Amino acid sequence: MTSLSNNGSATLYGIGIGPGDPELLTLKAHRLITATPVIAYPAPDEGDSFTREIVASYLDGMDKEEILIRMPMRADRFPAQEVYDRTRDDLARHLESGRDVAYLCEGDPFFYGSFMYLYSRMADDFHVEIVPGVSSIMAGGAALGAPLASRNDTLTILPGPIDADELKSRLLATDAAVIIKVGRHFEKIRGVLAECGLLDNARYIEHATLENEHVLKLDEVYPDTGRIPYFSMIFIHKRGAAWKI
Amino acid sequence: MTSLSNNGSATLYGIGIGPGDPELLTLKAHRLITATPVIAYPAPDEGDSFTREIVASYLDGMDKEEILIRMPMRADRFPAQEVYDRTRDDLARHLESGRDVAYLCEGDPFFYGSFMYLYSRMADDFHVEIVPGVSSIMAGGAALGAPLASRNDTLTILPGPIDADELKSRLLATDAAVIIKVGRHFEKIRGVLAECGLLDNARYIEHATLENEHVLKLDEVYPDTGRIPYFSMIFIHKRGAAWKI
Repeated sequence: MTSLSNNGSATLYGIGIGPGDPELLTLKAHRLITATPVIAYPAPDEGDSFTREIVASYLDGMDKEEILIRMPMRADRFPAQEVYDRTRDDLARHLESGRDVAYLCEGDPFFYGSFMYLYSRMADDFHVEIVPGVSSIMAGGAALGAPLASRNDTLTILPGPIDADELKSRLLATDAAVIIKVGRHFEKIRGVLAECGLLDNARYIEHATLENEHVLKLDEVYPDTGRIPYFSMIFIHKRGAAWKI
Repeated sequence: MTSLSNNGSATLYGIGIGPGDPELLTLKAHRLITATPVIAYPAPDEGDSFTREIVASYLDGMDKEEILIRMPMRADRFPAQEVYDRTRDDLARHLESGRDVAYLCEGDPFFYGSFMYLYSRMADDFHVEIVPGVSSIMAGGAALGAPLASRNDTLTILPGPIDADELKSRLLATDAAVIIKVGRHFEKIRGVLAECGLLDNARYIEHATLENEHVLKLDEVYPDTGRIPYFSMIFIHKRGAAWKI
């Protein structure tokens, strides 16, 4: 049902592998990752791929072709179109030779994922199937110990990089919100939440579902250390959710 | 990390089992559902439980205590507090006897899920762990063949029952939206989308990830048949996403 176009027999799978806990892969993601002969995944400019780390235990002893896609992570170089062009050609060669490719995406492939840059280059020419995954916002709700949203709540997802005025107006127009990709935007976001009188209604989460998961009140966060991860999040509920922290 | 309180040794697991495709259970959900001696799940007033149907193949030949919770589905009787009170007592008896209980939730337990009504009754007295699941909105993105949201998009989740004026103002204040629980609210929603000039930017989805999944333009939907499922959704993207339908 999610087979989107077809030219040849091999399939490119865009696979959501969830927020970080390897057990939050779906059964389908696990089956496809272990069955496909080629897997591809992003990695930072230097160092290990966190994406691969999530599935590492499932790849032990397997003989697979692995395509590591080194992606410039600095905002001023993103999205790195030439990297996606080259990756498109790499993946196309495998597909044209009849080899299925599993492209691994943290969280869900179509929820603010970078897979869209490859998808837009390949969906017209190849058979592409999207496998939805557990999003980090669902993982955040579980960590907070309270519903993200319920009944007739409006829930708004806001990317951290949007400017303070827009952030403020969007926050004022919703019952609950999740600010994603907080990272270096933390101070700006904290300022907006203070202006809106929402500091006590907000919680910060980093590394959801991992051993180093932290849920903090906003005055406990440490922006001056430079250690706020790009994928950290802030959850807000105006009614004041019954959070455990 | 998502263990929320503790009184005794047994655990109540609130488990997201995903949007419908049995293969979209997580590995963790699968492990817990097959390992726990007691499973509980909602069912309509009459007839089979769709929730149980999703996991049926994993329960074949297993000897488990099953607690079917018949829930009045009519809006005027929801939430049925007395049903949750009684269910709380049923589950408490198992937990107090040292038996773990897996409570099955379609989608994700804390994303507009009814598990919150049990959670609020039990989290203070029992060890409760939330297992996040794949939400139907992620399944919808996969079915549409285009990102739900990307880069700095604001994405707003709107429940179908909210009134037309609120729906309109929330839609005007976002880049992308998913209207959930469309059901009998379809005509109202279509009217608001027409007023906002967003009919061509919207798609209707029912039964995402199941054999009878349908993605339709809004003028193809059949509100007069009374066959619009409660859990149907409408996806909107103002830039006009590259949907396959």
